[in-house]
Amino acid sequence: MSLHSEINEQPARIKSLLQSQRKTVEKIAAAINQRDIQYVFLAARGTSDNAGRYANYLLGSLNGLPLALATPSLFTYYKRPPKLKNALVIGVSQSGKSPDIVSVLDEGKKQGCLTLAITNEPSSPLAEASDFVIDIQAGAEKAVAATKTYTTELMSIAMLSAALSGRRVLWDDLAKLPTWMGQVLKQDKFIQQAVQRYRYIDQTIVLGRGYNYSTAFEWALKLKELTYIIAEPYSSADFAHGPIAMVEPGYPVLAVAPKGKVFDTMLEMLKRLRSDISAELVVISNDKRALSLAQTPITIPSEVPEWLTPLVNILPAQLFAYHLTVAKGYNTEQPRSIRKVTETK
Amino acid sequence: MSLHSEINEQPARIKSLLQSQRKTVEKIAAAINQRDIQYVFLAARGTSDNAGRYANYLLGSLNGLPLALATPSLFTYYKRPPKLKNALVIGVSQSGKSPDIVSVLDEGKKQGCLTLAITNEPSSPLAEASDFVIDIQAGAEKAVAATKTYTTELMSIAMLSAALSGRRVLWDDLAKLPTWMGQVLKQDKFIQQAVQRYRYIDQTIVLGRGYNYSTAFEWALKLKELTYIIAEPYSSADFAHGPIAMVEPGYPVLAVAPKGKVFDTMLEMLKRLRSDISAELVVISNDKRALSLAQTPITIPSEVPEWLTPLVNILPAQLFAYHLTVAKGYNTEQPRSIRKVTETK
Repeated sequence: MSLHSEINEQPARIKSLLQSQRKTVEKIAAAINQRDIQYVFLAARGTSDNAGRYANYLLGSLNGLPLALATPSLFTYYKRPPKLKNALVIGVSQSGKSPDIVSVLDEGKKQGCLTLAITNEPSSPLAEASDFVIDIQAGAEKAVAATKTYTTELMSIAMLSAALSGRRVLWDDLAKLPTWMGQVLKQDKFIQQAVQRYRYIDQTIVLGRGYNYSTAFEWALKLKELTYIIAEPYSSADFAHGPIAMVEPGYPVLAVAPKGKVFDTMLEMLKRLRSDISAELVVISNDKRALSLAQTPITIPSEVPEWLTPLVNILPAQLFAYHLTVAKGYNTEQPRSIRKVTETK
Repeated sequence: MSLHSEINEQPARIKSLLQSQRKTVEKIAAAINQRDIQYVFLAARGTSDNAGRYANYLLGSLNGLPLALATPSLFTYYKRPPKLKNALVIGVSQSGKSPDIVSVLDEGKKQGCLTLAITNEPSSPLAEASDFVIDIQAGAEKAVAATKTYTTELMSIAMLSAALSGRRVLWDDLAKLPTWMGQVLKQDKFIQQAVQRYRYIDQTIVLGRGYNYSTAFEWALKLKELTYIIAEPYSSADFAHGPIAMVEPGYPVLAVAPKGKVFDTMLEMLKRLRSDISAELVVISNDKRALSLAQTPITIPSEVPEWLTPLVNILPAQLFAYHLTVAKGYNTEQPRSIRKVTETK
């Protein structure tokens, strides 16, 4: 059962990543700060794309860097890559092998951009196409569903953001992550029991906003890969612009709503879902107002700063997906129709 | 029944938009070409965000402009807008009223960027916050589900792209759109009958890639708003990275697969879904190989150039959503829980 053990490995992997890669990341940040970088152009697929969503908010808010998610087909099928003047080109890929992601980095290099690979395979084609590499050092991931490679990708991005900002205090927050993550993992048995209630759902909505837009996408992806539930992620704002029409009384809505700048708007949406529409709510939070609205509240430590909540929130979400997979009687290690390394062009 | 008549109004609206706004669009393009614009920063929500997805591929492939989709919460809740040096900032909004979209344009102006509003309300706050305005001239849209404002937003973007490219031949393609759109609308009765087969679906996947990634998102959004089906859009590449695991024999998959650069990869995915997984396929295409794989094939004119297929493909998709709403016995004009103008921060 490697999936469950890989979920539990995460605090240790994050701790060792912080220790072993800090100097490398600071060197990369110095090189970036020397250049006139005007925006980030990031290419990724699947779980790594969700790490890219985190980068979008984090590099924007902490480092003032706008981020464009690459559309790899412009590089591969259309052969019309855009002009990447003054962009930092980042590729995120566990395997470092997907040809479409490699082709974006190749083009970035060809156009003279600074290029960075974030990967678990430092001798992969992606790493070789890049000026700099952050080795996420997740160790071999045997389960098809990515877990520890996701959190180590997030951690690499958080370390890069801290290094770019030059604010040493942020590294103190980063050092506390393994403890917070360990605390959350203690809820394993609670979550195992809680998911029984959802044994027969076949669809759901996952809400998150700001930094945790990434968590909503990654929670939904784990559910889709493992439990075959159709789980659709939304920011609470986009959700209000139409899709909320789908929600009927009793409809299960999962929400990631920790304390922070977007908490009030998430709370307002949760109240509307519970009071006006009588939806069923599973809520990950460290604020009692949000937790008290949920039929299934999942608590994270109170003191996690908002910018690092995605690294903590995803752990109970992974456990939720894992235990629901077991409850539904599906294979946790090898989901049907997908492979560990998907090579798309 | 304004939804059905608004769908049918689209060829006439596109024709008049082309005639009345071409000069304005060419003036805007000249102003953009005079500046050292390095990328586009685009803010939108809901249907307009799907028009932004079209802009992402079109401005990238025809004009070499990378595009970043704005994350409005960085401007509103986090109050940490990124540095937008050398960006063209575009806001797309039917009503021009959503405060989060307006705040992105305000910030762009404050930072000295060139700003452009694409809106149906040329005296809206969004238009007033912008250097330039493309008035999409869709006329009053009474149905809550947007249709003609979507295609006129796409048309505005297509006209801007043609003007920026300086290639006059592209305007000849644009001039043919009303005819192609009119041809597709003649399939109204066929689609009304075809949707009966899907009366009892409660979930689906919508696939598209490249230019028609936008079409997949917009088709899915119409289904969610009107029929309350959970409909999830994907590029065929992202779909292969995990979510394909959800598909069982008989599972309904909708696909947008016209001839063009990404056709072969879409065809490969359709073959896999039909042959390996025995999925049920609804396919919009002008290529017989894709249409022959579908239980429900929907044909568009053979000669539509790929870059304009999103303006044609969305019409049968809108009719599909409209007739399925009627078949399910729901209100086509006023879906539950949503309003015409959604003001999110």
